[in-house]
Amino acid sequence: MKKFFVITMIIAFLFVSLHSEEGMWTLDQIKKLNLEKKGLKIPVSEVYNPNGISLTNAIVLLGGGTSELISENGLLLTNHHVAFGAVQKASTKGTDYLTNGFLAKTYKEEIEGPGISASLLQYSKDISKKILKVGRKIKDPVKRAKARARKIKKITDKIEKGKSDIEARVAKMYNGKQYVLYVYKRYDDIRVVFMPPGAIGNYGGDIDNWMWPRHTGDFAFMRIYMAPDGSGRKYHKDNVPYKAKKWLKIAKDGLKDGDFTFIMGYPGSTTRYRTSSALSYTLDLYYPNAIKVLKETIDLLDTVGKKSKMTKIKVSGLSKGLNNAMKNWQGKVEGMHRTNFINKKIKFEKELIAFLKKDDKLYKKYGHILDKIKSEYDKKRETYVYDFNLGLGTRLNGTLMGIANGIYGTIMERAKPKKEKNPRFSEKRVKRGVSRLHYRYMSYDESADKALFKAGLKRLNLLKGEQRIKTLEFILKGGDVAIDKFVDDAFAKTKLSDVNFAKSLYNKKQKDLLKLNDPLINLAAKLYPETEALRKKAERFDAVITELRKDYINVLYLWKGSDMYPDANRTIRFTYGAVEGYNPRDAVKYAPFTTLGGVIEKNTGKKPFNMPAKLKDLYLKKDFGKWCAKPLKDVPVAFTHKCDITGGNSGSPVLNAKGELIGIAFDGNYEAMTSDMQYDEKLQRTISVDIRYVMFITEKFAGATNILKELGF
Amino acid sequence: MKKFFVITMIIAFLFVSLHSEEGMWTLDQIKKLNLEKKGLKIPVSEVYNPNGISLTNAIVLLGGGTSELISENGLLLTNHHVAFGAVQKASTKGTDYLTNGFLAKTYKEEIEGPGISASLLQYSKDISKKILKVGRKIKDPVKRAKARARKIKKITDKIEKGKSDIEARVAKMYNGKQYVLYVYKRYDDIRVVFMPPGAIGNYGGDIDNWMWPRHTGDFAFMRIYMAPDGSGRKYHKDNVPYKAKKWLKIAKDGLKDGDFTFIMGYPGSTTRYRTSSALSYTLDLYYPNAIKVLKETIDLLDTVGKKSKMTKIKVSGLSKGLNNAMKNWQGKVEGMHRTNFINKKIKFEKELIAFLKKDDKLYKKYGHILDKIKSEYDKKRETYVYDFNLGLGTRLNGTLMGIANGIYGTIMERAKPKKEKNPRFSEKRVKRGVSRLHYRYMSYDESADKALFKAGLKRLNLLKGEQRIKTLEFILKGGDVAIDKFVDDAFAKTKLSDVNFAKSLYNKKQKDLLKLNDPLINLAAKLYPETEALRKKAERFDAVITELRKDYINVLYLWKGSDMYPDANRTIRFTYGAVEGYNPRDAVKYAPFTTLGGVIEKNTGKKPFNMPAKLKDLYLKKDFGKWCAKPLKDVPVAFTHKCDITGGNSGSPVLNAKGELIGIAFDGNYEAMTSDMQYDEKLQRTISVDIRYVMFITEKFAGATNILKELGF
Repeated sequence: MKKFFVITMIIAFLFVSLHSEEGMWTLDQIKKLNLEKKGLKIPVSEVYNPNGISLTNAIVLLGGGTSELISENGLLLTNHHVAFGAVQKASTKGTDYLTNGFLAKTYKEEIEGPGISASLLQYSKDISKKILKVGRKIKDPVKRAKARARKIKKITDKIEKGKSDIEARVAKMYNGKQYVLYVYKRYDDIRVVFMPPGAIGNYGGDIDNWMWPRHTGDFAFMRIYMAPDGSGRKYHKDNVPYKAKKWLKIAKDGLKDGDFTFIMGYPGSTTRYRTSSALSYTLDLYYPNAIKVLKETIDLLDTVGKKSKMTKIKVSGLSKGLNNAMKNWQGKVEGMHRTNFINKKIKFEKELIAFLKKDDKLYKKYGHILDKIKSEYDKKRETYVYDFNLGLGTRLNGTLMGIANGIYGTIMERAKPKKEKNPRFSEKRVKRGVSRLHYRYMSYDESADKALFKAGLKRLNLLKGEQRIKTLEFILKGGDVAIDKFVDDAFAKTKLSDVNFAKSLYNKKQKDLLKLNDPLINLAAKLYPETEALRKKAERFDAVITELRKDYINVLYLWKGSDMYPDANRTIRFTYGAVEGYNPRDAVKYAPFTTLGGVIEKNTGKKPFNMPAKLKDLYLKKDFGKWCAKPLKDVPVAFTHKCDITGGNSGSPVLNAKGELIGIAFDGNYEAMTSDMQYDEKLQRTISVDIRYVMFITEKFAGATNILKELGF
Repeated sequence: MKKFFVITMIIAFLFVSLHSEEGMWTLDQIKKLNLEKKGLKIPVSEVYNPNGISLTNAIVLLGGGTSELISENGLLLTNHHVAFGAVQKASTKGTDYLTNGFLAKTYKEEIEGPGISASLLQYSKDISKKILKVGRKIKDPVKRAKARARKIKKITDKIEKGKSDIEARVAKMYNGKQYVLYVYKRYDDIRVVFMPPGAIGNYGGDIDNWMWPRHTGDFAFMRIYMAPDGSGRKYHKDNVPYKAKKWLKIAKDGLKDGDFTFIMGYPGSTTRYRTSSALSYTLDLYYPNAIKVLKETIDLLDTVGKKSKMTKIKVSGLSKGLNNAMKNWQGKVEGMHRTNFINKKIKFEKELIAFLKKDDKLYKKYGHILDKIKSEYDKKRETYVYDFNLGLGTRLNGTLMGIANGIYGTIMERAKPKKEKNPRFSEKRVKRGVSRLHYRYMSYDESADKALFKAGLKRLNLLKGEQRIKTLEFILKGGDVAIDKFVDDAFAKTKLSDVNFAKSLYNKKQKDLLKLNDPLINLAAKLYPETEALRKKAERFDAVITELRKDYINVLYLWKGSDMYPDANRTIRFTYGAVEGYNPRDAVKYAPFTTLGGVIEKNTGKKPFNMPAKLKDLYLKKDFGKWCAKPLKDVPVAFTHKCDITGGNSGSPVLNAKGELIGIAFDGNYEAMTSDMQYDEKLQRTISVDIRYVMFITEKFAGATNILKELGF
């Protein structure tokens, strides 16, 4: 269900040959796409207008996904799974909104969705020249990268200065060929308006996740609130609904097979321009190791969740996220093998080298680019097991240990001389992190945290020789008994379980921090030299590989022409494509629409196929209101179309040729799990919930007349 | 894969509302079907002509399935899984034909397929009047049934007298409303001509069994041999190929979506006219218990098979059969629940009663028919666990214990006075059984046999109170240790593992048999009184329920009219229907043809998806010969059509409108697992291997030019 929610832990990659519907285009590129010829029935300027108001202004970055304004009063539509984390946190106060759903009939009844923020793009600007001229003469790639990062920070600090709700971010396009500044206004008071029950919003659960045909009503209504003066701030009783400049209209005409659609949203990350050496590294080492650890962790969370209902609610977000990432990676591994991905890539690279060889000068300049990249990955392979376990492997040790590492790392970074500091470090960021720390504690559960920590240490204790984490030997050498004792003692003694205590530590000096003698802080301090060395190694790899990848992109430009789109990087993108089913395998054809009848068909009464009785009743009575699709004689639930999206696009609006809202994107299909690395026109589809299902559930199931009224029905 | 192979252990049931393609029609009924209007392009008399030669004469009952003559020289085409048991037995001599396949290039190279026989129908005749007048005045239903059975035996004995290759069987139609005599000539020398390797003939194995889309090349060529004088006899070096009166021609035109097809074959058993009480009994008790025991037994066979390759080959037939039955029953249980089957049936019965109530006389006569049937099933429920475990439960105790029970039962039956004897007992049957006993020993494996026996006894030892098998307490009371010891000792001492010794026992007197003091014979003797009592109870139930079911059929006749076909009972039947895919679930459409490309798509290199390299190579070279289907640009592998078949139809010819061979039926689809109980036009399909795939494999893969030549290519 959440393929298109940002998977934060992902490391990925690849390449491209431009097909009709391929492409996550930047707003500037839209005008070059000849959309009117492809089916768009409104002027392109109504889609994006850098000098005025257009549909783009209704697109909102929300949490790990995307959302869209659908009323003048800040009403947002997004996915159930994008709202999930916030609603999970709201549920820790006692009412299980995840299972039961939630409906506010008035503004007053709308509840805080803790921890989720909305960002609205104010403007964007190409600043490549400014950045690229910096550090041209610096030979050391790490120093050069840092010099540029400092320049970027200077620019963004200037913009943000004195404005707590303004965020300036600079996005690296085409692996650093281009730098674009994006300035957002951020709203931290997002409230829940209508969340359907889990048996609708998460119908099919992990079993159906990524799968077509799909029957999930993956939507939720939220609302942006702002201070009375129009600025963004956190939850406050005096806050008022946001006043939108532009909002989307619900389509009155039903969507059908073959119709033109487009999506705007915030795709997180793709790697369509990577080399075979990068791909092999990930396929051979990263995925298999990560999948194994995730599987173990999910099983563990499942076990601890069985002991207490509250524990289960608290770990549900993490568990869902890990499940989603694991299924994604498994699918990628399968897909890469099935499509003979790496061999195809090698063939492509041979053609590339043949192209370069035609021109001596060119070959001299770029002829060894692939070898250079390979050599970097070969180095990474050597220490992979150690790096992986110190990195991802230690990250799954629970909330408190993560916070201890964060506190100690902040203090050490602050104490560094300016030139050595991580350029992205800023007191503003630290302050915001501290102010939001209590959201992390909403998912904190002691029994789960201890179980994760113990399991993590025991996993590290299986490593051999050079792979071992030296700093931890003082615990590990005692085996399982010593590990259990260490964790039990640490949790008995640490005061980090108190969020206010934790918040008070970020401004301490190292010396004073260590005087507290908190066992988790002490452990973080012990680990720091090892993790810091790893960070430095990664920093060097990133600086070197970025330069090499930029060269590689230059070569692709020279070879294939400049009609390319940059990899997704959580900046706003446009993608279009027709409603269309697909042939997943021999003799099987998937239609592009599912129906309420299909929900009934899957219903077993047992989670995750436990549709509410009332919904079944509406079906049996054929009480579909105006949300019935005539040719189907049923309410359409979800549909597939040929848009090109990825994680982060979750909740993005799907618009028809007239620019009206016809659905909400929420997933991609399992058959195209390698889509972040390569586009496959025959198999890759976006899965969206049909706006008619959203409205049917809202009106007929929930009786949310207030929402219908607000939408002008 | 073997849904349509006879499942001998099955007990089943249900009802009907006549749809277009429903019906397993007797030959006499064909002329009433208006086939010319439905697409048949040859006169009906070419399909069936009681007074001459017609296509019917090419249809041959073969082992547990059906086959068809395709050359003048007795060449048969059937399913790989129909030939499987015989080829498995041939493989016990050392060469694993199941894995490697087998091809004879000349008559001389053709090998014996041990244990399999072919029966050709000579004529049939309605003898209802003769049978039904017998026993009219006998009140006791068991005595009446026996009197009729004796009459039947008298008729068939007379026909068979002095002719060892003639078999006369009387089939009860419509639960005993009609009796039809069928006279066959039997040939016991069937040889293997071409068996594709398991990686083609059983491609997809148990995973794909019952499933569409399917990619199994489920076919084999065999040949009937006869004595030089034309009589049927067992394998003999002087035997010559059978001379066919009629054989089928391979179609030259490719089949396509929507084309008319028909099938003739020997469906084993359907129960489309059962009541809700019978259905509930089976759903509540029979299937769940049977599935559990089968699952355990399959796992056990899997474990013992891992210890030795020869053991694995020897138990493969049993294991395959059990797997097939289990998947069938699981599918039936799912299907019955999913389709709300029993409630529909109850609704149907309410309408039936309402119909009867309109006529006082009718209601008086038949108004309580459903209650009467229910009362019989209620009685069965009371002792169900005991009966089940003594019946099916003890049947899975291995080969030798089965043979011991058989020997002792034969001797006891023979000693009974004529009126008490099972009317189907005859010395001729005993003699034939004894002469074929060595085929059973070909699947005998001591380690598997002992493991099955031990597991069976341990299972029986879990029963409580009234459910327990009293006779076995002397072993069971000692627990697992005693059971293991009993079985080990018994196998160390018994001489039954010697087939010739076993054969010598069938004509002994009880007294002399017991003097041998063979532990397995002794146990059979101890068990006999309990199993005999169970048999008598079943005999009574059968006699009573048959009369009641006949009344029920009478009521259906009165209500729905006489346009009914009798339940399948292993007599020859005709069914027709168009080539058509189906919609298995919301948004999914299955096309009616699969292709060689789909074989590649499923290929993982691991069993059961391990296609031969040569086959892959043919695909990559597009070396399809004349077997390519133009619209698919590929070789069609299998297809679905709307014929109505069941277990026993396996291997049946599929013919086109011109009466030419276009495929071989080999399965039904999982979505219609309840098809034996109810026909569902939307979901029920026959799955057949396309004759073009058969010919492509034969010519291009196997290079069997001799077969092509014999077929006139």
